Amino acid sequence: MTYCVGIRCEQGLVMASDSRTNAGVDNVSIYSKMHRFEFPGERIVVVLSAGNLATTQGVIDRMQRDLEEDNPDVPSVRRLPRMHDIAEYIGNINLELQARYRSENGKSNFSVNASFLLGGQIGDQPHDLLLIYPEGNYITYSPHVPFLQIGESKYGKPILDRIIHPDISLSDAARCTLVSMDSTMRSNVSVGPPFELLLYQRDSLEIMRHRVFDQDEPYYARLQAEWSTALRRSFDGLPRFEWE
Amino acid sequence: MTYCVGIRCEQGLVMASDSRTNAGVDNVSIYSKMHRFEFPGERIVVVLSAGNLATTQGVIDRMQRDLEEDNPDVPSVRRLPRMHDIAEYIGNINLELQARYRSENGKSNFSVNASFLLGGQIGDQPHDLLLIYPEGNYITYSPHVPFLQIGESKYGKPILDRIIHPDISLSDAARCTLVSMDSTMRSNVSVGPPFELLLYQRDSLEIMRHRVFDQDEPYYARLQAEWSTALRRSFDGLPRFEWE
Repeated sequence: MTYCVGIRCEQGLVMASDSRTNAGVDNVSIYSKMHRFEFPGERIVVVLSAGNLATTQGVIDRMQRDLEEDNPDVPSVRRLPRMHDIAEYIGNINLELQARYRSENGKSNFSVNASFLLGGQIGDQPHDLLLIYPEGNYITYSPHVPFLQIGESKYGKPILDRIIHPDISLSDAARCTLVSMDSTMRSNVSVGPPFELLLYQRDSLEIMRHRVFDQDEPYYARLQAEWSTALRRSFDGLPRFEWE
Repeated sequence: MTYCVGIRCEQGLVMASDSRTNAGVDNVSIYSKMHRFEFPGERIVVVLSAGNLATTQGVIDRMQRDLEEDNPDVPSVRRLPRMHDIAEYIGNINLELQARYRSENGKSNFSVNASFLLGGQIGDQPHDLLLIYPEGNYITYSPHVPFLQIGESKYGKPILDRIIHPDISLSDAARCTLVSMDSTMRSNVSVGPPFELLLYQRDSLEIMRHRVFDQDEPYYARLQAEWSTALRRSFDGLPRFEWE
């Protein structure tokens, strides 16, 4: 499985992904699920991927090829004028690849589905965050609940529901994604480190920070330990039942 | 949806269920999902249900009927000698009802599946907790991770993973199920109050406590508020990134 989360706050974007992939428990591997297309001063496009690894790699590879060939008649992450156009472009490639592999494996039980989070900013347009479904359609973030998730999203959602709001700082949003990752990883062995974390400050048109956190990275290890202790202490401090 | 959780600790059993049912967003209702079969001094059997409401009601109704008819040739929650036998009995009724309704609605898209948590104790046998799948098979609790969940289980799992252990007190286990319920309810509108909470002290062969918590029940309201505040404080106290 996979867990990816994107937050679109007023200050900018925070995106995070795990890196564990598995095709059965005896075929677990590590792949980056965060793909950056950077054109500093012009546009920043970041794509997080979940689902079938061949499909997601195929989609990213096609995006790279279209970018490198730079054919004026072919859309690319650099040529398309709006973030929504890029979402549709990714959705179309996704549909095309899924259809090809599905038809050749029609009777097999495995899924070729893939989904994506797309974040970034183009020129002076607002920074945006979108989720692209396996069906090729897509949605944007909600101004009221400004985060989107793909993959194994439920374990890590409660802390986002409590903490994330549109005016949160980029650093607080980043910290919250790490807590959300930590909760997911503890409850599901198929989500695992290293985690990638990316911060984008609105209107900067360059990636502010990109960090990789391994299990024993000092900051992440400290965050995990302190969160665990604080939760335990919070729980121990809860009101007693009247019978206690 | 539904969220039900059972904890089997050394001191006894804690079981909790929400009460919201929905057949589409315009057909939301409230039904108890906690069914108690009490024979004080002899045996205690508690069943929590999730899934198709007609199936779960059908299963519980059959169990009631078999109990009332008290035919020596027909199994019942009172006659069966072991908790595992009761699990198999529930699994068989569940399979039979699902098969009947599935065949009459073969082309429809809805699911008649149901699953159950079964907790209790028979005479001087150990107290036990089991999960019965829609397929009719069942598993018992793990001594290392002594809780089981049915329904919308993922949102509420992280706090159980952190807090529950075999030697936890009944009151702490009960408090943890309420926190787990609260997290689930915040992240999924299809899980909602009132919540039922049941405590069983091992070897007592009678139900120790059965409580219903509505949204504005004073203890539950205080627990929710204090947990929310403590989480916020815990989050705010987490270590800063080196760039802050």
